[in-house]
Amino acid sequence: MDDIIVIEHQKPRLHDPIFIEGLPGVGNVGKLAAEHLVDELKATKFLTMQSKYLPPQVLVGDDGILRLVNNEMYYYKPKGKGASDIVFLTGDYQGITPEGQYELSYRALQLLEKHRIKRIYTLGGYGVGRIIEKPRVLGASTVPELIEEMKKHGVVFSKGEPGSGIIGASGLLLGLAGLWKIPGVCLMGETSGYFVDPKSARMVLEVLVSILGLKIGYSALEQKAQQIERLTTQFKEAEKAIADSRAEDLRYIG
Amino acid sequence: MDDIIVIEHQKPRLHDPIFIEGLPGVGNVGKLAAEHLVDELKATKFLTMQSKYLPPQVLVGDDGILRLVNNEMYYYKPKGKGASDIVFLTGDYQGITPEGQYELSYRALQLLEKHRIKRIYTLGGYGVGRIIEKPRVLGASTVPELIEEMKKHGVVFSKGEPGSGIIGASGLLLGLAGLWKIPGVCLMGETSGYFVDPKSARMVLEVLVSILGLKIGYSALEQKAQQIERLTTQFKEAEKAIADSRAEDLRYIG
Amino acid sequence: MDDIIVIEHQKPRLHDPIFIEGLPGVGNVGKLAAEHLVDELKATKFLTMQSKYLPPQVLVGDDGILRLVNNEMYYYKPKGKGASDIVFLTGDYQGITPEGQYELSYRALQLLEKHRIKRIYTLGGYGVGRIIEKPRVLGASTVPELIEEMKKHGVVFSKGEPGSGIIGASGLLLGLAGLWKIPGVCLMGETSGYFVDPKSARMVLEVLVSILGLKIGYSALEQKAQQIERLTTQFKEAEKAIADSRAEDLRYIG
Amino acid sequence: MDDIIVIEHQKPRLHDPIFIEGLPGVGNVGKLAAEHLVDELKATKFLTMQSKYLPPQVLVGDDGILRLVNNEMYYYKPKGKGASDIVFLTGDYQGITPEGQYELSYRALQLLEKHRIKRIYTLGGYGVGRIIEKPRVLGASTVPELIEEMKKHGVVFSKGEPGSGIIGASGLLLGLAGLWKIPGVCLMGETSGYFVDPKSARMVLEVLVSILGLKIGYSALEQKAQQIERLTTQFKEAEKAIADSRAEDLRYIG
Repeated sequence: MDDIIVIEHQKPRLHDPIFIEGLPGVGNVGKLAAEHLVDELKATKFLTMQSKYLPPQVLVGDDGILRLVNNEMYYYKPKGKGASDIVFLTGDYQGITPEGQYELSYRALQLLEKHRIKRIYTLGGYGVGRIIEKPRVLGASTVPELIEEMKKHGVVFSKGEPGSGIIGASGLLLGLAGLWKIPGVCLMGETSGYFVDPKSARMVLEVLVSILGLKIGYSALEQKAQQIERLTTQFKEAEKAIADSRAEDLRYIG
Repeated sequence: MDDIIVIEHQKPRLHDPIFIEGLPGVGNVGKLAAEHLVDELKATKFLTMQSKYLPPQVLVGDDGILRLVNNEMYYYKPKGKGASDIVFLTGDYQGITPEGQYELSYRALQLLEKHRIKRIYTLGGYGVGRIIEKPRVLGASTVPELIEEMKKHGVVFSKGEPGSGIIGASGLLLGLAGLWKIPGVCLMGETSGYFVDPKSARMVLEVLVSILGLKIGYSALEQKAQQIERLTTQFKEAEKAIADSRAEDLRYIG
Repeated sequence: MDDIIVIEHQKPRLHDPIFIEGLPGVGNVGKLAAEHLVDELKATKFLTMQSKYLPPQVLVGDDGILRLVNNEMYYYKPKGKGASDIVFLTGDYQGITPEGQYELSYRALQLLEKHRIKRIYTLGGYGVGRIIEKPRVLGASTVPELIEEMKKHGVVFSKGEPGSGIIGASGLLLGLAGLWKIPGVCLMGETSGYFVDPKSARMVLEVLVSILGLKIGYSALEQKAQQIERLTTQFKEAEKAIADSRAEDLRYIG
Repeated sequence: MDDIIVIEHQKPRLHDPIFIEGLPGVGNVGKLAAEHLVDELKATKFLTMQSKYLPPQVLVGDDGILRLVNNEMYYYKPKGKGASDIVFLTGDYQGITPEGQYELSYRALQLLEKHRIKRIYTLGGYGVGRIIEKPRVLGASTVPELIEEMKKHGVVFSKGEPGSGIIGASGLLLGLAGLWKIPGVCLMGETSGYFVDPKSARMVLEVLVSILGLKIGYSALEQKAQQIERLTTQFKEAEKAIADSRAEDLRYIG
């Protein structure tokens, strides 16, 4: 099979698009923020990626219908003339191996090649291991020019933070974007890392809508967080089930 | 070598076939049910898959003859005119890596492409962690239309079950089947998950033969379960042997 | 790079060859037996396989010269006219992943394709977890015809042994040999599995030379065992070093 | 994506070049020595390798700018006429899988093919598990001819050391170099293995500059060691973060 199967639902023509990524990660801050934005803007799904780099798992909805875990792209065309379109990348999982993470991030960029992305925002959480009263939004940029602009919108650039760099899609998409000469910023909301964090996601979103000149509500955010929390719990159960069954059937590759 | 080596023993022409999968998994419910059905219907083996995604292991029969672990396909042509033929997929193991599981499921569907499968039933166990007096058969479907039909045969569609989705071939075959526009259902027998469970397999089989309009006996099921239990124990010993030898020779990749 | 790099030192023309495998494994019985035979017969190295499926390691000899770990093939042409030539496969390691084990075994068979191998003997240990006074040599065959022949030379075919099948190259070479229609037998010397076992290797060798009609001495076997024991200890140190360094640098993929 | 992405910043024409490798490893001796030499000689970066065999991680500098982890090559052209140019390979990580280590080492050699490397020096640490007052520099060579030459410069060839061979790039580059018939030596500074070791790196450097007839200062070495120590600590934090997040999101492949 193809390592990554791309299913195009629509072939939108995008104007000067901005690319926003929010996949599962620390505190699910990025996923929560991106999915909330997709919902608020009523963005349109145009692309699904299935991949052997994702878990071999289908999810079953409350209606009894199953679907393969995936990554998805959405687009949003703002009303105002001349304004940039937005493309979103979100999904159920990141790649489950380092190689898979590279392949999925590279492919996302490659799929957007023809749309000539002008800037990337990757959204994530910055785990600090304790409850944060007022989460800051930390930034890291691919180019010096963006740093001042970000600071104006409240993004904090703090020497030595994140000391450990950025792991996964939020880092890779920006790290690989240099191959297409696309500049970008990672926006990281401080979070304990212990649960899905709507407060941190809101901080990230407030920065992001300020940058993009959008207006959105936040009332659904808390509910979305509960939804993701539930899904995360189920994922953990699934993982435990897998771990257990593998302990039986597949202890082999241990 | 080819990632998956396909050995065709026969090239049957199949009429409107239905595809039934039963590979090892929770409680070996799926494998037990599918193999019992293959035996009862005297289905004919027509295809063997060997693969580097399966364990590097040969099994030795009581007669001293060895064979490589594999996945196999069988077909059954019912007597009645116009009735659907049935194709079975069963085997010694599922793929031992997530990527291998994707590749093996995809290949199975691809191999059946020319036969124009009209529906898929994947069989499995739904582990609940305790002994169940009267196991239910849970269902998950790729399309809404099948749900009512399944309910008529006693399949339970229960909101939030299985909360963790479906892992492995029983999920993947259905999740990937959308690429060929083949509808399907996963039938999961409740089981403790602690041993090979003939009672759960029987519940699944009763639903399945009701759907397919078949008649089979169940007397050999208990014996088959003992056989698989013995094999499973041996697999566990093999896995332990591998784990131990790897601990010596191959601790390396740890 | 090629997954497996093949370096041919000579291109022998082999007459009706028999293939004997002895790679590291339980008790290093197979490796010990095969290497002893190579030494006693003064067999000639004609092929080296380097591979990314082997550990990323070079060995340093007492003379300060290093070489990459590998698998090697040797050939031996007996004096008597009409007698079969023998090809040996031995080496430092087996593949360190299941996939790598498949690839290496398949490639070995493929490399010998043109020589039209007529029979395969794979040598290994059968770990029983206790010291054995008089190790038996167990057998498993790809075809029924060979079983009687083997029994005449003292090979034991015992129902349910080895219950767990045969793991690694000794199993795979025979399991895959069916693709080339080459028959073969696995000869397994009983061994505790706790150390390199020259007694078990001698039992295997006595059976093998009886089958092949060869004459060899055994005086060097004990010394060879000590040599391999030393190397194995060093490998374990290396593995520990790797494990430790990976724990530092590469804990990542854990 | 390409498994290894090669970005050429310059296309230098190199005269009779010598190749020096210093990637992270035991005590970071090799990386420390090679990077110090690059700094002291003001060598010029001409090539960057990004790869899915490296961690999916970007590093964030004190200025808030991020970059993908990588391996890099530098060259240095000495003033004196006829003297050999030097090529350096250093980087953030080694490959995180055995296969990745093979691929990265092989590619480095392949990239230098056209420059007709005449000799390779790989630099590393030899972990002894205790603090060493006066670290020796141990050697291992691909050919006998280099051993005497190395001894003149103080390199110790000690029977049975390193008993476990050499793991990773320092071994692989030399083990694979035989395919291009390039001779080489591994220089290993004794080190406890517990921390970044500037004393061991200095011993290795003193031998190396003696061999190469170079003159460098050592005052910056201590500071460089602290820098790498800091980075290593951050890497460990990153790894812990990854381990933790994987324990959540990706426990799956365990």
